[in-house]
Amino acid sequence: MRLKEFQKQLAKKRMGLALFFNFDGDNLDPNLVYFSSYTGFGALAITPKKAMLFVPVAEYERAKRTSKVPVVAAEKRMFLTIKNKIRSKPKLIGIDKNRVTLNFYKALRKEFPARYSDISSECLRLRTVKIEEEIRIIKKACTITDEIIHNMFWRFKQFKTESEVAAFLVNEAGRRGLGVSFKPIVASGKNACEAHHEADSKKLRKGFCVVDFGVRYKGYCSDITRTIYLGKPTQKEIEMYYTVLNVQTKLIAKCQVGKSFIEIDKKAHELFGKKSAHFTHLIGHGIGTEIHENPNPKQTPRRPVTELLENSVITIEPGLYYPGKSGIRIEDDVLVTAQGPKVLTKTGKNLLIVSRSGK
Amino acid sequence: MRLKEFQKQLAKKRMGLALFFNFDGDNLDPNLVYFSSYTGFGALAITPKKAMLFVPVAEYERAKRTSKVPVVAAEKRMFLTIKNKIRSKPKLIGIDKNRVTLNFYKALRKEFPARYSDISSECLRLRTVKIEEEIRIIKKACTITDEIIHNMFWRFKQFKTESEVAAFLVNEAGRRGLGVSFKPIVASGKNACEAHHEADSKKLRKGFCVVDFGVRYKGYCSDITRTIYLGKPTQKEIEMYYTVLNVQTKLIAKCQVGKSFIEIDKKAHELFGKKSAHFTHLIGHGIGTEIHENPNPKQTPRRPVTELLENSVITIEPGLYYPGKSGIRIEDDVLVTAQGPKVLTKTGKNLLIVSRSGK
Repeated sequence: MRLKEFQKQLAKKRMGLALFFNFDGDNLDPNLVYFSSYTGFGALAITPKKAMLFVPVAEYERAKRTSKVPVVAAEKRMFLTIKNKIRSKPKLIGIDKNRVTLNFYKALRKEFPARYSDISSECLRLRTVKIEEEIRIIKKACTITDEIIHNMFWRFKQFKTESEVAAFLVNEAGRRGLGVSFKPIVASGKNACEAHHEADSKKLRKGFCVVDFGVRYKGYCSDITRTIYLGKPTQKEIEMYYTVLNVQTKLIAKCQVGKSFIEIDKKAHELFGKKSAHFTHLIGHGIGTEIHENPNPKQTPRRPVTELLENSVITIEPGLYYPGKSGIRIEDDVLVTAQGPKVLTKTGKNLLIVSRSGK
Repeated sequence: MRLKEFQKQLAKKRMGLALFFNFDGDNLDPNLVYFSSYTGFGALAITPKKAMLFVPVAEYERAKRTSKVPVVAAEKRMFLTIKNKIRSKPKLIGIDKNRVTLNFYKALRKEFPARYSDISSECLRLRTVKIEEEIRIIKKACTITDEIIHNMFWRFKQFKTESEVAAFLVNEAGRRGLGVSFKPIVASGKNACEAHHEADSKKLRKGFCVVDFGVRYKGYCSDITRTIYLGKPTQKEIEMYYTVLNVQTKLIAKCQVGKSFIEIDKKAHELFGKKSAHFTHLIGHGIGTEIHENPNPKQTPRRPVTELLENSVITIEPGLYYPGKSGIRIEDDVLVTAQGPKVLTKTGKNLLIVSRSGK
């Protein structure tokens, strides 16, 4: 995306070269995806003047179709091909030290003797604030996700197991030529107490059922959670659900430009009051070419940005979890704008009750 | 798996502690999975005497169900909880330098000041030779994969797009409570020339259709490829298919204990003769808790073992690719034993022709 801006930063820092790597198929560098839109195995070289994507011969056709930057097929060793194409011998090379491993770094230094500087925070910061094209893509990802969640609602009575629901979601993404942004979470009954439960193939349990799902569209992630009820909820359960929804609605309204995500996380605990101990994870995260990115409600080396910047996209996902019993979570994707928060996922949030037939 | 053996190695090297990390949900450490069978976010600490898995509170329930080693919920910061539980201050700590990134290393050294030593090759070597329990698990993974591929064959006429086929495969794994070992590859017509084509949502193209698929069962991967024909193949196409099958059969027979995987890769090119330039990737790879592991037909820092060791499990997957036109690949999983190679994936390999109705 903001390649020119990044190249200017390189020039300013007298960095002759920046290198990014998608290791193996499933280990994607969100920066490489960000600058090139390519999601396969390969390396991206960016100099202040040009950008080139290097891929194995076997990936060349696919890369040519999807990459925003010129593609080179590495006929020989990847490093060698890069060397031959770059020609200049940069004295200072930028890499993402959150991604490059100790052993890979060793190999890299051997091939490209230079000083190396960490450009992870530059990339993270660039990626935090979305440009118009990215917002359009994420909106589309959210619309598709809403559509799929709706389709799931409609046929929920047909599903017998959690993994059938999960497979349906993956299938719906696949039918549209898309992958998922993470393995869908479908957690019914007592499984719902596990925030990251893996869908199992046992009969769907009565009680709350948490469904957490997202697609990857043109490299960008969506992320939504809805909790439905299987069977007949008690008054107390209905109240519990609306406690979470109420907290979520109040928190979304607070997502104003310049606000601290840390404060919003604190506010969640405040709003939950006595139930606060049952809210056991962070209130949300940024989304983009990575499913968890900046801004973040906790400052970490990989997620240094805690401020809600204009045109950042975050999730707001409060929940309550009762170990061995049940759980509830409601999550939306929110675009932070000067005009206030805009909720990008539009699926309704009233408690949906699926009565189990014959019981 | 071979935890005791690993602990003996630690003691011998006077390493007081080894640390492994599953970063984020989708970035699993195959060593952590290997020693604990746990596939979520967390850290594994192994000392010469004990092993403990540390997970966030939200993952505790799931971890307890699947982990082979005792689980500790990290009530506070992960590093702090580990420190409190380990108590001793080891002078030498083992980490996998193929996995630990430069920035994570920086943070780690701050929390655990010690000398650090790379234990990646010890782990890779342990994982290369499978014990009985692992072989049983991988065999089961292959049997399930065969079953799913059969089910796909039977209903192939119903599929309209590549992504429908891919979704069916994911769905079949999901129905059995399993994930996939990688995103299925379904490549029809000219798409088949891309070894790692991403299934698209356009109409299935006539000609060869490459299907590459595997499941993850109890942490272990299977990996199979079959190529079918949609429409009516020409005599030349049939010959091309059997050229690949013939090469594959001959190569599998050569997978004897002590053989070099590099030699088998060379032999593939020799057998393809004039067509050799159209075989554009390596002949195979090891499989286990990682979809690509040792032994490997090319020596790399992450895959140093090129010898076919007794009880290692590899894939043999020759192919021919014609850019912009078509492609063929046939892949099986092979257990290397003293009694010779044992093919674990049993799906038939005669060319399956699916005539398109109404054309």
